[in-house]
Amino acid sequence: VFESLLVDNDRLAERNRGFFRAKRLLAVNLVSSPGAGKTALLEKTLERLQADPDHRAAVIVGDLETAQDAARIRKAGAPAVQITTGAVCHLDAEMVAGGMEQLDLDTVKILFIENVGNLVCPTAFDLGEDLRVVLLSTTEGEDKPLKYAPMFRTADLVLLSKSDLASAVDFDRETALAHIRQCAPKADILETSAKTGQGLEEWISYLKNRVQDI
Amino acid sequence: VFESLLVDNDRLAERNRGFFRAKRLLAVNLVSSPGAGKTALLEKTLERLQADPDHRAAVIVGDLETAQDAARIRKAGAPAVQITTGAVCHLDAEMVAGGMEQLDLDTVKILFIENVGNLVCPTAFDLGEDLRVVLLSTTEGEDKPLKYAPMFRTADLVLLSKSDLASAVDFDRETALAHIRQCAPKADILETSAKTGQGLEEWISYLKNRVQDI
Repeated sequence: VFESLLVDNDRLAERNRGFFRAKRLLAVNLVSSPGAGKTALLEKTLERLQADPDHRAAVIVGDLETAQDAARIRKAGAPAVQITTGAVCHLDAEMVAGGMEQLDLDTVKILFIENVGNLVCPTAFDLGEDLRVVLLSTTEGEDKPLKYAPMFRTADLVLLSKSDLASAVDFDRETALAHIRQCAPKADILETSAKTGQGLEEWISYLKNRVQDI
Repeated sequence: VFESLLVDNDRLAERNRGFFRAKRLLAVNLVSSPGAGKTALLEKTLERLQADPDHRAAVIVGDLETAQDAARIRKAGAPAVQITTGAVCHLDAEMVAGGMEQLDLDTVKILFIENVGNLVCPTAFDLGEDLRVVLLSTTEGEDKPLKYAPMFRTADLVLLSKSDLASAVDFDRETALAHIRQCAPKADILETSAKTGQGLEEWISYLKNRVQDI
């Protein structure tokens, strides 16, 4: 049953992908544990992107309950749709397609999809995205790439978030980087702090380069 | 299909519960996001419990991959069985029963079950436990009880972990406590830090009281 669910999802993901190509939109799927800082990163990212008419973004946000994150995103200046999944621990391609219908995607270059906070469930669900970004916060520990390897293996980019807290939690950066490279040898890695701004310029440049490639 | 899975799980959970009653064992199911500090809490807890012949514990640990946590637990002096779930984002009653067979449960009073790090999937899976403990670390943010309300609603005890990092992350304690109480009005709440030892004596007393009630 799970397999046939995935077959259906993969078809709808391809439809999303076709839609993104036609609109020349970069679709970015953000996944992580709860509380790794996806929304905080988006707030800081959108402050920068929305000021640039060539790189405006819209956001689809997934959560089990509450519409708090979409409200935070709108406050940061971007159009946002909240999807509440109830008991479902990931977004799927159909939910994303439903969210897309509620957004004006002709005026934006990037569609961020902030997935449900979960390092397992979103792994197998292609949303049609161009870029899968896995956030790992320094407070979660260096061992997480090995423990949640299936997710890290699907990453195009790993964002090591909350770099400002690294010393407070005795974060072993070299070990964490080695574990990420072990699971995701082809993934890019950036280190960011939404609080101090560290790495945000690199992250924005990374996105803009990807927009250019489309 | 999911419903029939749960019916099967509930039957096996009752069998586990009967087994725990017969052995006069307190079974504790620990759930949280990845990196909220379940293993670190257990390490400090076991250092204290294993020194007391009346309150020795054994541990069943679930992870998608790796056996690191069981190794950490054994180093802390307790017998431990690692269950690797592959792509499954929670333990179920059958996996726990399999783990129990590999442990000598006649010499212990507490069986800790460290679930897969996930604030969604373990929610509906009864393991036959006496006590469900949901850890929420200060670094995850005050909004998580509302976003992952289904899990918090099932908590007997919420442990606010990493209290030592509260000021570094501008943690709003009153808001977090209000959100926990909103979702889990009957749950007990303790604040702990495995690093500084804050709250560990209360947590140990809490467990010992529960052992006495059995």
